[in-house]
Amino acid sequence: MTGSAALFTDRYELTMVDAALQDGTAHRESLFEAFARRLPDGRRYGVVAGTGRLLELIDRFRFEDAELEWLRENRVVRPESLDWLADYRFRGDIWGYREGEVYFPGSPLLTIQATFAEAVLLETVVLSTLNFDSSVASAAARMVSVALGRPIAEMGSRRTNERSAVAAARAAYIAGFDATSNLEAGRTWDIPTMGTAAHAFTLLHDSEEDAFRAQVRAFGTETTLLVDTYDIRRGVELAVRVAGQGLGAVRIDSGDLPTVVASVREQLDELGAVGTRITVTSDLDEFTIAGLSGAPVDSYGVGTSVVTGSGAPAAGMVYKLVARRDDAGEWISVAKASTSKASVGGRKNAARRLDSTRTAREELVFIGDGPGGDAEFEPGSHLRPLMVPLVTGGVADAAYLGAAGTAAARAHRAEAMQELPIEAFRLGRGEAAIPTTYR
Amino acid sequence: MTGSAALFTDRYELTMVDAALQDGTAHRESLFEAFARRLPDGRRYGVVAGTGRLLELIDRFRFEDAELEWLRENRVVRPESLDWLADYRFRGDIWGYREGEVYFPGSPLLTIQATFAEAVLLETVVLSTLNFDSSVASAAARMVSVALGRPIAEMGSRRTNERSAVAAARAAYIAGFDATSNLEAGRTWDIPTMGTAAHAFTLLHDSEEDAFRAQVRAFGTETTLLVDTYDIRRGVELAVRVAGQGLGAVRIDSGDLPTVVASVREQLDELGAVGTRITVTSDLDEFTIAGLSGAPVDSYGVGTSVVTGSGAPAAGMVYKLVARRDDAGEWISVAKASTSKASVGGRKNAARRLDSTRTAREELVFIGDGPGGDAEFEPGSHLRPLMVPLVTGGVADAAYLGAAGTAAARAHRAEAMQELPIEAFRLGRGEAAIPTTYR
Repeated sequence: MTGSAALFTDRYELTMVDAALQDGTAHRESLFEAFARRLPDGRRYGVVAGTGRLLELIDRFRFEDAELEWLRENRVVRPESLDWLADYRFRGDIWGYREGEVYFPGSPLLTIQATFAEAVLLETVVLSTLNFDSSVASAAARMVSVALGRPIAEMGSRRTNERSAVAAARAAYIAGFDATSNLEAGRTWDIPTMGTAAHAFTLLHDSEEDAFRAQVRAFGTETTLLVDTYDIRRGVELAVRVAGQGLGAVRIDSGDLPTVVASVREQLDELGAVGTRITVTSDLDEFTIAGLSGAPVDSYGVGTSVVTGSGAPAAGMVYKLVARRDDAGEWISVAKASTSKASVGGRKNAARRLDSTRTAREELVFIGDGPGGDAEFEPGSHLRPLMVPLVTGGVADAAYLGAAGTAAARAHRAEAMQELPIEAFRLGRGEAAIPTTYR
Repeated sequence: MTGSAALFTDRYELTMVDAALQDGTAHRESLFEAFARRLPDGRRYGVVAGTGRLLELIDRFRFEDAELEWLRENRVVRPESLDWLADYRFRGDIWGYREGEVYFPGSPLLTIQATFAEAVLLETVVLSTLNFDSSVASAAARMVSVALGRPIAEMGSRRTNERSAVAAARAAYIAGFDATSNLEAGRTWDIPTMGTAAHAFTLLHDSEEDAFRAQVRAFGTETTLLVDTYDIRRGVELAVRVAGQGLGAVRIDSGDLPTVVASVREQLDELGAVGTRITVTSDLDEFTIAGLSGAPVDSYGVGTSVVTGSGAPAAGMVYKLVARRDDAGEWISVAKASTSKASVGGRKNAARRLDSTRTAREELVFIGDGPGGDAEFEPGSHLRPLMVPLVTGGVADAAYLGAAGTAAARAHRAEAMQELPIEAFRLGRGEAAIPTTYR
């Protein structure tokens, strides 16, 4: 990815920098925190995603000539502040939850320590990436857990912005999806891509048989034939006739799925196509996938619901100043005090308390200094530290970047999910799976 | 904007092209249509947005060396098909509803006529732009209509992907929002930007008074002071003390808004700040804005709900092959026949039937040839044609592009909304405001 990310920013961040440069407070060392006050309604846990993308965007967060010229022409800040912006690059430190980590209300997902001006500029880009990507990953993780090991492909690019589609494919992959239809996500993040044909391909041909023959000629009998353009029963029969009993898979994109899938399986078996798989792709979400757990489905394709966070299209994370140094160099905790949006000030650390079976029991948020490592907490239990250094002195840890970082996040998510108590996997509405305790 | 848009594409579009190039059907002249089977649950109308962005993306839809190399390495298509892709640019015709137009279920929002291969490649990019942008515009238009002329600013960048934020700002502006906090949207689409300070600016300072003084020194007394960091009553009192009775505005971002706004207005008037405006920004949507219609609010700032389509984050549009030529050169209507996702085949035209008061009464979709102009339909009523040429022979009409196209879409939306019957503006759930009739 190329180009400046500096204008993915709300105007008030620049006006705050402008005003704070005038009275000198811009240079006060500050600590900002990104966290979610609550999980989306009824959810038991969330999955952090976006971190790797964010680190790359922060590296590209520079005001180049084009950005400075636009800010000058539009008088967004004073000319003196433009000089400061021209020199800007983030030189601070960021600690946070690893991408793929599970989170709960109040989990300090990122802490950004830098001068006020350096850190406040990142508010929008931090929240855009974390909110969108975590929304998708949190929904996707629920779908993965109810799919019971059957592969799921993300195919929702058409139901979200063309660029957010690429991020959504990545977030779903981190959450355990196996592939995406999105080619740019394949290229950028090395995610397996999939897809064969739409109904248009069948309708293009003079007959369904012509279409199937063309597809099998092009891709071999291992391909997936879409069998519901006209009549599923005749489609299946034709598919096996054209491709033979070695047909790879049939795809079903409509109808009452539990019934249809059962009858297609029966028909395939009767036709001797016992190895032909069934993939379904019709408006699935975590609830319909769960409803298919007893059906002979081999794989799922999910679109709209995953890229829109399945009812929770933004994860609700906020970015708050929680501490700053005063003129004497002392750290002071700060927090907004108003109704319903109060936050907890102060530098934080976090650990997850696990019991003797390595099941998560509590999210511990330490205000002030927290535990430095994997210390014993009580007999038979221990604390898993949750925050790792992501950016040090402006330099991102390369382990979290690019395709390798994406793969690492996916692996970390799998491990972190294994710690969740069984209640976390209930689909019905409920409270967070473990409580968050401030110490 | 720069860079190729060719991989904002689902893999199956390329595999269909690959297979259709092998059997020659790729070159069959085809007609694809984008439409919504239904409006989001309970909505009365939708607003088309994304068209201008789409036309720019289509112009950038080229397979450059980097894309071709990735497709080759990953064997997405055969080597022979790569040569076709290397030469690809869209050379067909696109007709459609103007950006900003109101739409209903079945409205033929776009028709794309080209060879099958040329047109099928655009499926994802067509739907990503129309679905996302129209979702935002449709939600935004409802907010605008209940704001009763009070200005609304879009400030939801942090609650959607960093790139979709730019598109969302544009879609909200087309739907009648007055400004955005998003700087990139300001730069790219010439949308007015706004914003002054967050709670962090107050917390950065040793006192609220210091923060207000710094802001007034930087931006003058016309600025907007955020008064709810600690205690709203004291915040308002301090704001007027610092800025004087000429203070531009106070912003309230929390609390029970109808009550709080009324008491802040009273307090401002008592303090002699009778010209100081009140802007509110706390988790607003069309329902809370409607609930504030009797409150002395001067302007609104809306975030999460507008960028996420206020409960309908994807507009549900689909892209279907509706007609193609056969080998004899005759047009044949085609349509999927399966349950619940059937579509209406054939070339379409559309017009809105208006009564003598220029109120919309019916969405007429003509299958085959439709009306060419503004013909009289019955005494006292007439038809307004809805489809205009957007792309001719691969060349987009420049009137729909860039900042000027965005402004034109905003103006067109205002005109089209004036035709809607009064029932369309009810917030409660209901049917589409006018019926769609196929002729």
